[in-house]
Amino acid sequence: MKHPKLYYCPGHMSFASHVILTEIGKPFEAITVSVKDGATQSPEFKRINPKGKIPVLDTGSEILTESAAILYYLALTNPECRLVPDSAMGVSRAIEWTNWLSTILAGPVGQHVRPERFTNEEHARPGVKEKGTENLLIAYAEINDRLAGQEWALGDCYSIVDPTLLIFFKWGNQLKLDMSQFGHWCEHAKRMERRPAVQAALAAENISIW
Amino acid sequence: MKHPKLYYCPGHMSFASHVILTEIGKPFEAITVSVKDGATQSPEFKRINPKGKIPVLDTGSEILTESAAILYYLALTNPECRLVPDSAMGVSRAIEWTNWLSTILAGPVGQHVRPERFTNEEHARPGVKEKGTENLLIAYAEINDRLAGQEWALGDCYSIVDPTLLIFFKWGNQLKLDMSQFGHWCEHAKRMERRPAVQAALAAENISIW
Ligand SMILES: N[C@@H](CCC(=O)N[C@@H](CS)C(=O)NCC(=O)O)C(=O)O
Ligand SMILES: N[C@@H](CCC(=O)N[C@@H](CS)C(=O)NCC(=O)O)C(=O)O
Repeated sequence: MKHPKLYYCPGHMSFASHVILTEIGKPFEAITVSVKDGATQSPEFKRINPKGKIPVLDTGSEILTESAAILYYLALTNPECRLVPDSAMGVSRAIEWTNWLSTILAGPVGQHVRPERFTNEEHARPGVKEKGTENLLIAYAEINDRLAGQEWALGDCYSIVDPTLLIFFKWGNQLKLDMSQFGHWCEHAKRMERRPAVQAALAAENISIW
Repeated sequence: MKHPKLYYCPGHMSFASHVILTEIGKPFEAITVSVKDGATQSPEFKRINPKGKIPVLDTGSEILTESAAILYYLALTNPECRLVPDSAMGVSRAIEWTNWLSTILAGPVGQHVRPERFTNEEHARPGVKEKGTENLLIAYAEINDRLAGQEWALGDCYSIVDPTLLIFFKWGNQLKLDMSQFGHWCEHAKRMERRPAVQAALAAENISIW
């Protein structure tokens, strides 16, 4: 059997898939596609994912896109790793989190990082960025509330949601939000950092969450 | 057992959950929350969903948010209705579609309908709206491509993805995009309209997709 291939870029949404593949511990190939250099928008990469986004998983027989779908696929095909709960409600809660998080990336994070994708008018971009930050802080406060009194996003059970939260935490620091106001989330991030697979993925991507 | 309650607003994202509950055919209660009147942003509703969004499903014991999660929960708890495939790849493809579609709502559709949520500067809103439409047409072309030669979004198997696509199709017409350019999607919409559950949900919401 061919090893799965993950198309990723250090410090981006693909980080969650990178962690989960590392948690699973089976061989995989990690292929860098640079967001900054525009490689995600190149014709070659768009033949793999017409949406021009990472992560992409090549399972050996099929191409799967969307972080949430890749994470879920990895969890389902490696049930012994218990990366999603096995109740209908438990697994739906995982989807609830990942779906919501990806809309925060598509809206507020995107506005902050890529305002030019939200308006063609150059003079309007600072305002788009500012409103992105405003909405991001509201969403981050809500994430923090949901983590109160929980070890992991879904309660006692570590899951595919947790590394997704960690990359959003890193982005908060990177965008210079005051993340210390989100105490429950800081505790969650520290718990994450104690996991060997998280340490390994951070080292492989050569990034820090702080 | 208490009946599940769906919080919804006619013609909005909740339509997909409304169709799927109707396909399942068990009793449920549908509670209208008006987006236009701001009821989704009221303190009462935010006690149910702090994110201020519909759909929300009250299962009788838990509150679940995010269209994708609700649809998936309904599919999993009613396996006899076969609303998602049962292979790991099949179900991950359903998540791939719904995750992507919800980012199109959070970005381009939102920009078109609610530019004030993307910038506080009034004069910048027409530009935000225009760019939303530009990005929406790119995403809609990609959706149309993915429907080529397929009866349903996932191929032969009708699923929770299909009614989600139908509400995006309606929005295209509502936003006065020329939807006739998306031939595969038009065929899909017509196939959807022949389903009794779709007809019933359209009638219950008193809306048309055209
Ligand atoms: N909805 C996608 C979004 C992924 C996404 O936005 N990835 C960004 C990096 S964080 C990307 O690939 N950007 C490259 C580009 O837009 O060119 C998912 O959840 O996987
Ligand atoms: N990520 C959510 C988004 C749902 C959403 O945006 N719903 C809109 C209607 S289409 C809404 O409730 N808007 C009310 C508001 O923003 O006040 C999902 O996929 O369910």
